[in-house]
Amino acid sequence: MMKLTRSLLLSRNLSSEKLLVGKVDDVQEALCLHSFLSRADMSTTGAGENPVPRIFAPYSIYKGKAAICVDPILPTFTKMDSGHFRVDRKGCILLTFGPAIGERKYDWGKKQVFALSATEVGSLISMSPTDTSEFFHDPSMKSSNAGQVRKNLSIKAVPDANGYFISLNVVNNLTKTTDRFVVPVTTAEFAVMKTACSYALPHIMGWHRLTNPQLGDSAKKSSKIDPQLLDLEWDK
Amino acid sequence: MMKLTRSLLLSRNLSSEKLLVGKVDDVQEALCLHSFLSRADMSTTGAGENPVPRIFAPYSIYKGKAAICVDPILPTFTKMDSGHFRVDRKGCILLTFGPAIGERKYDWGKKQVFALSATEVGSLISMSPTDTSEFFHDPSMKSSNAGQVRKNLSIKAVPDANGYFISLNVVNNLTKTTDRFVVPVTTAEFAVMKTACSYALPHIMGWHRLTNPQLGDSAKKSSKIDPQLLDLEWDK
Amino acid sequence: MMKLTRSLLLSRNLSSEKLLVGKVDDVQEALCLHSFLSRADMSTTGAGENPVPRIFAPYSIYKGKAAICVDPILPTFTKMDSGHFRVDRKGCILLTFGPAIGERKYDWGKKQVFALSATEVGSLISMSPTDTSEFFHDPSMKSSNAGQVRKNLSIKAVPDANGYFISLNVVNNLTKTTDRFVVPVTTAEFAVMKTACSYALPHIMGWHRLTNPQLGDSAKKSSKIDPQLLDLEWDK
Amino acid sequence: MMKLTRSLLLSRNLSSEKLLVGKVDDVQEALCLHSFLSRADMSTTGAGENPVPRIFAPYSIYKGKAAICVDPILPTFTKMDSGHFRVDRKGCILLTFGPAIGERKYDWGKKQVFALSATEVGSLISMSPTDTSEFFHDPSMKSSNAGQVRKNLSIKAVPDANGYFISLNVVNNLTKTTDRFVVPVTTAEFAVMKTACSYALPHIMGWHRLTNPQLGDSAKKSSKIDPQLLDLEWDK
Repeated sequence: MMKLTRSLLLSRNLSSEKLLVGKVDDVQEALCLHSFLSRADMSTTGAGENPVPRIFAPYSIYKGKAAICVDPILPTFTKMDSGHFRVDRKGCILLTFGPAIGERKYDWGKKQVFALSATEVGSLISMSPTDTSEFFHDPSMKSSNAGQVRKNLSIKAVPDANGYFISLNVVNNLTKTTDRFVVPVTTAEFAVMKTACSYALPHIMGWHRLTNPQLGDSAKKSSKIDPQLLDLEWDK
Repeated sequence: MMKLTRSLLLSRNLSSEKLLVGKVDDVQEALCLHSFLSRADMSTTGAGENPVPRIFAPYSIYKGKAAICVDPILPTFTKMDSGHFRVDRKGCILLTFGPAIGERKYDWGKKQVFALSATEVGSLISMSPTDTSEFFHDPSMKSSNAGQVRKNLSIKAVPDANGYFISLNVVNNLTKTTDRFVVPVTTAEFAVMKTACSYALPHIMGWHRLTNPQLGDSAKKSSKIDPQLLDLEWDK
Repeated sequence: MMKLTRSLLLSRNLSSEKLLVGKVDDVQEALCLHSFLSRADMSTTGAGENPVPRIFAPYSIYKGKAAICVDPILPTFTKMDSGHFRVDRKGCILLTFGPAIGERKYDWGKKQVFALSATEVGSLISMSPTDTSEFFHDPSMKSSNAGQVRKNLSIKAVPDANGYFISLNVVNNLTKTTDRFVVPVTTAEFAVMKTACSYALPHIMGWHRLTNPQLGDSAKKSSKIDPQLLDLEWDK
Repeated sequence: MMKLTRSLLLSRNLSSEKLLVGKVDDVQEALCLHSFLSRADMSTTGAGENPVPRIFAPYSIYKGKAAICVDPILPTFTKMDSGHFRVDRKGCILLTFGPAIGERKYDWGKKQVFALSATEVGSLISMSPTDTSEFFHDPSMKSSNAGQVRKNLSIKAVPDANGYFISLNVVNNLTKTTDRFVVPVTTAEFAVMKTACSYALPHIMGWHRLTNPQLGDSAKKSSKIDPQLLDLEWDK
């Protein structure tokens, strides 16, 4: 069993999110996509800018008690005085969990997120059919709220080696709440996650920029990509 | 053995296809490509528009009793009011089967198709040399014809672990017909399928757009890609 | 052991090549690249055209008795009346063998080539450390010289599972000659071949065009890529 | 155990580097990136040119006694009289080691580098959980200082198959110094290295150029990429 702790993630403020989302119906049909879209609509309206268009294509797994969406988030780059670029904010694979509230209905207003770092993705894609991985995040680490919110993601092989249970536990001492999501994932669905995350890994590390010099121009732009969207999830 | 059911596929109407194709000779030499090309020619002529050029490069396996073509179909994207894009129609790996009617001759007018979803592709690419996968599609699901056409694709390891049998069974209660195709596939051919489908998987999920921001412009265009071509296969 | 026969390859005429290459010194230092470059220089000079620049980056393995170069060749595309594109000439992985004639010296004027098809590449990349693959090409198949030249490529695991022997045998009944090359390849070198060929496979199949619609423009151009370079190796 | 010797690398002159870097503080926080950035800033200032912007996105592993950064370096291309391009300087995966001098502090002024060739990368990515790889470089080979500096990189599986030790030994007879770095790497971190290096391998070989003809234009530019940056590491 691998245990990794990541400390640079600040959780989004759930209550302020509800405020922002406003009249958007929290209870939706099976559209994990919704939670992303409302956020994106928000950020453009609110900022009054014209950010680079984002493309939403999460891989979603809907099960009886909860759903999970898998979505790569690219790193951002900063141009230095020398004219060169360096990674500013690291990319991640964002896992979004939503609880089921009926047949094919999920309450994305009660979602919780977990952002896998490059190394955590390395752990996921190297799992054998009998492995277990566990990751701990303290989204408030290095702030005065350190230790108040604890997130625990576990990926456990099903005993008969026919898939995995992906579970997220969020214990919030500030709001005195505990959220728990369990999504059973088939071998086929996990193969999609592994293959897609292996594809995404060099990209969330920023290596696609290294190996495609002609992307230099877009590096500048990408640093403008919808900062609000990222700030909601963590703050390096 | 994995069993997956996919319900969002509507089969194309075979009889109307024959009508549309008109004078195109149904009996062709070993050119699986033909069935794609005639369709593409149709859609441009018929629509009078100027769609984004499509590129045809199916991987074809010709065997004694039938042939199979493997062809990735990209997702389409929709621009939202916010200026961002979301996946509109999901991509797939399209398998096209045609019966043999002579030496190196296949009747593509009698073809049947099976569109593998991302998760079904995940199942295919994670198969061990002794695994078996089976997929069921009801192309008319959620319509009044639900249950009238049943498609069953099976990929079975050859006992001596030296390849696979890929079989498609289509039972159509409306036309009182049953079509069955069996294509023996060597280990080398299956390795091509696995490698090419692993490559295509993030693309049919739309993740190549997420990780290549500079593709933003083409996202708009791609929603115009030859809709007829896709409507023939399914209707989400 | 897998046996595959490929019949659509016509061998280049060795004697005419020597004529064309003219004063270029046949005996070179360890530069497999040389054989490609002289050919490329020829074709532009000869044709008087301005073809799309080609980029030469073969992976070369130099050993005591022979050297081998591995080089991907992209497919070419043809624009159809409909405005769409289809694969015209399939791509391949070109293996070029040259005999050693001294320390780190190879005689590329006596080279022999073997063009691996997509399926043959599938065979190579799926080999286990104890597997053996064997491929047979008759470059004159379907011509009056059918059967006169027989090429046999074998990839055999070294008994202690510590690499492979890659051998090419060319028996030419027209010139009454037999050429034989054997290159011992380490596990590390074979891993490079497998990884690079897995990367190249979707590209030689033309699937990179399917999944990158914005490449549409270059499809037109690529059909102009140095035809002489390809005609020398085979004629579909 | 695989042993490979690479002879075409010339080590950078450590003392001249210190001179160049000047007032840049040698003792930095945990930012392996720093060593790259100062070099990049140097080269643009010094040369007075306007090189193609470089993008810095190393994968860094910080451990108690040392840190390691993994960074792909692309090949450069030369345009030939024919208008075609050939690889000029081969690419590599650059490993940079820095000793720890406090909690999360590393002295990048005392760094040592090791440039993995394509074949050495092939060795790394094909390692099983129990394998060991060892590479030897003489950066002064073929010069009058041949044999004076010996670099030895070893990657050894941890006995319980739960990660690797990556060690670099540099024995310099000219300066009478020996540097030794040992970085324990977890299974997850090594999976990132394997996946990212597998992704980068075709790129450092230059095959991304072969399979993406539209990159032709950037080939010209890339030959201008910050030569000083490369000259510091080796001289083919």
